[in-house]
Amino acid sequence: MELWFTEKHTPTVKFSIQVDRQLYCGHSEFQRIDVFDSKEFGRFLTLDGYMMLTEKDEFIYHEMIVHVPMAVHPAPKKVLIIGGGDGGAVRELTRYQSIEQIDLVEIDELVVEVCKKHLPHTACCFGDERVSVYYQDGLKFVRRCEQEYDLIIVDSTDPFGPGEGLFTKEFYGNCFKALKEDGIMVNQHESAFYQDDAVAMQRAHKRIVDSFPISRVYQAHIPTYPSGHWLFGFASKKYYPIEDLKAVKWNALGFKTRYYNTKLHVGAFALPNYVEELLRDVE
Amino acid sequence: MELWFTEKHTPTVKFSIQVDRQLYCGHSEFQRIDVFDSKEFGRFLTLDGYMMLTEKDEFIYHEMIVHVPMAVHPAPKKVLIIGGGDGGAVRELTRYQSIEQIDLVEIDELVVEVCKKHLPHTACCFGDERVSVYYQDGLKFVRRCEQEYDLIIVDSTDPFGPGEGLFTKEFYGNCFKALKEDGIMVNQHESAFYQDDAVAMQRAHKRIVDSFPISRVYQAHIPTYPSGHWLFGFASKKYYPIEDLKAVKWNALGFKTRYYNTKLHVGAFALPNYVEELLRDVE
Repeated sequence: MELWFTEKHTPTVKFSIQVDRQLYCGHSEFQRIDVFDSKEFGRFLTLDGYMMLTEKDEFIYHEMIVHVPMAVHPAPKKVLIIGGGDGGAVRELTRYQSIEQIDLVEIDELVVEVCKKHLPHTACCFGDERVSVYYQDGLKFVRRCEQEYDLIIVDSTDPFGPGEGLFTKEFYGNCFKALKEDGIMVNQHESAFYQDDAVAMQRAHKRIVDSFPISRVYQAHIPTYPSGHWLFGFASKKYYPIEDLKAVKWNALGFKTRYYNTKLHVGAFALPNYVEELLRDVE
Repeated sequence: MELWFTEKHTPTVKFSIQVDRQLYCGHSEFQRIDVFDSKEFGRFLTLDGYMMLTEKDEFIYHEMIVHVPMAVHPAPKKVLIIGGGDGGAVRELTRYQSIEQIDLVEIDELVVEVCKKHLPHTACCFGDERVSVYYQDGLKFVRRCEQEYDLIIVDSTDPFGPGEGLFTKEFYGNCFKALKEDGIMVNQHESAFYQDDAVAMQRAHKRIVDSFPISRVYQAHIPTYPSGHWLFGFASKKYYPIEDLKAVKWNALGFKTRYYNTKLHVGAFALPNYVEELLRDVE
């Protein structure tokens, strides 16, 4: 017997992983949630059939969405995560002793419960006393915030389904308002290789550019996401991602990371020409 | 009807492309050769069932294997390509007026013929008067060369089948000998994400490190290769890939590239920690 999980990256491109067994299948009021176990990627989580994370490569995504802004902001104390119910961003953030408060706003409580049970290496730090979890719509949560956070991490699903509101101009405007005067917002920024993805990415990018004075895009190699070439947005009120990188200070923390390092931090912002052109078209 | 090309990236991971039609299928004395047409990737070439190039993303591979060494060497005039029967590396090299001679050594004449016919955007520059094609075993060809080339590009298939000899210590030693005293060798260096690939990559890397005084690895995002995170080797007798990068001079050439630029050149050498560790283990 062979059991395969398949995701269509485009209508004519498929990525498939052989599954040992399904560990969980359930429906929340927002989406279908599945967890599978596999030989190559270990356990992996899908939402509505889309790959969210695998045990084998989630370190890349979570290190890149957390350590890049953390190595730039000089003193981040209060962090807001929108989405991120798998706990991977929380895990990386709790490594910083200097952080005093981590608020996580996840719309779907069942995602957190399922990850705590089935993905314990990722959802391992919800018990940290600095972490508060709010099961609310992130879009509504940020509306009420003003000058509160040093860093907002938008760890959303794709720009359709429950995550759709987290790619709107209203949302980015409210994130701007929710940040302190030197705050930084990073977001998962989709990818640029396949045409439909590129169009959605450009639309989101335009809205971020319109909302923040400083807006850059950086990249990572994430093998289980479409094309493997994933983008992140870095939007900021004051700090520039390379000019304000505090490499010596970050390296002095002595963190063991498997993907991120401060040389790679700089390199991640050096995008291919075709990606630069897509971004320039909307700026 | 649906027709799908599938490549197994590991025994339990598959990448599949829907095919409009098969344009060519043939067997040479070395391998099976196929060309397909597809909606997403345009035409693509496989050898023994392994993806070699697609019209959509071959620019990434060929720009990165050619422009990186060309932007470092101050005056490359005589270039040897081992493999590269698709003509993509030749195409990028012929853009440089300063190059006087391009020798291409391809073991399989049928690959060149098929590419000329079915992949005309890639195999477009074999008619350039500076280009000589030798249908020979690259391993044997370099044995006879001494201090002849400024640049050797090892544009091989994977380290099994016909390309196997191009990953041996003897071959790299002969490349060293075939280079002038300030020569550079670049090679396609496989990938590091999947375990079996990483082991093969480490083995090849060790042999290069043992053969050249300067040896570095750089990366690119190539969506149709396993994991999408592809590596290249930069081995050299004298020049360092970043310290000796001639960015101003290269940019003055005014080449339009879709992936490569001199900022990305530097960033491409900033590898993730887990790749650095794999390389360090054998150095």
